[in-house]
Amino acid sequence: MNNGLMIVISGPAGSGKGTVIKELMETGDFVYSVSWTTRAPRPGEVDGVSYRFVSVDAFRERLGEDGMLEYTEYCGNYYGSPRREAEAVLESGKNLILEIEVDGAMQIKKKFPAAVLIMLLPPSYAVQEARLRGRGTETEDKILARLDQARNEVVLMPEYDYVVYNHDGGQIACAEDILSIIRAEKCATARHPDAVTDYFAQDN
Amino acid sequence: MNNGLMIVISGPAGSGKGTVIKELMETGDFVYSVSWTTRAPRPGEVDGVSYRFVSVDAFRERLGEDGMLEYTEYCGNYYGSPRREAEAVLESGKNLILEIEVDGAMQIKKKFPAAVLIMLLPPSYAVQEARLRGRGTETEDKILARLDQARNEVVLMPEYDYVVYNHDGGQIACAEDILSIIRAEKCATARHPDAVTDYFAQDN
Repeated sequence: MNNGLMIVISGPAGSGKGTVIKELMETGDFVYSVSWTTRAPRPGEVDGVSYRFVSVDAFRERLGEDGMLEYTEYCGNYYGSPRREAEAVLESGKNLILEIEVDGAMQIKKKFPAAVLIMLLPPSYAVQEARLRGRGTETEDKILARLDQARNEVVLMPEYDYVVYNHDGGQIACAEDILSIIRAEKCATARHPDAVTDYFAQDN
Repeated sequence: MNNGLMIVISGPAGSGKGTVIKELMETGDFVYSVSWTTRAPRPGEVDGVSYRFVSVDAFRERLGEDGMLEYTEYCGNYYGSPRREAEAVLESGKNLILEIEVDGAMQIKKKFPAAVLIMLLPPSYAVQEARLRGRGTETEDKILARLDQARNEVVLMPEYDYVVYNHDGGQIACAEDILSIIRAEKCATARHPDAVTDYFAQDN
């Protein structure tokens, strides 16, 4: 099994997902899955970095050929994780990171049981709330909406394979947890269906 | 979940199990499960190190109270892993290493589904054979018997959770694989049944 792993990372607001993924990317063993979207780029957004900006027709064509690992429609725009690009990464031996919401994660879990689902969380709801308020940049309405969304995400944790808690300043420990998860998953006998045969092969 | 994990390590002759376990023990996070046996100590064997030497009555008393995690009878002697001592280790937060044969591992898997089963292997049967012959200390009959036993062990690999390959000089990499497995297992959502409730608890 020299293929990379498909790693789904979900984490509500305040989980520090961005900094943890940055730590992972610095190891050089990962490729970040750039989502396709049909929404217009915002000022400063570069095509192909956070998103690939595509036409509705282009998106629908991919959808029609089962070319999205997962997708969603939100505020009249499509968002999705392109499949062909993902498969190329996995075949190269690198691990693919999909930073997606719980709904997309559930689609992946169903379609690709070999994917590894990780939920990143603050240590507790109380800490999450404190982190969101501590930013001091958002309106109370926005904070309450984010917390409400977070509640709906956290309750799906049992559907994930792993939960990693991001304590204050814990992004390196979280990245190490995730690297351990990947190293362990690569040793899982379930991922080595031919291991017994291979072991006894004459040319081994 | 602050309890330690029950780690079962099996590995046929030539897998280098002893040196890998020595590496793990040096981290200080593990306690080695000392088996009870009713056989007589051999010259140089110290009670409580590799084995605890006990009477047949003492062994049977433990067996009668379901006090062995697993046991076997071999050449007229009992061998078993004592349960009470194991539970004390796990409650202390240390991980317990059980270095046992496949038969005992299968007993553990059935009785304690939370145990983590790891099979340590040479990279291939060919390497295993070369390692056993390379020792130059055993008769051909003994070598063939060990290889035969190894075959019977390796075919049970799919019953284990993980397989770790010990390449030449690879004992440190193997120990790191096993440490990753333990770190990952501690993040498994299946080991955190109360995580969602705990997350939202007021006093958290």
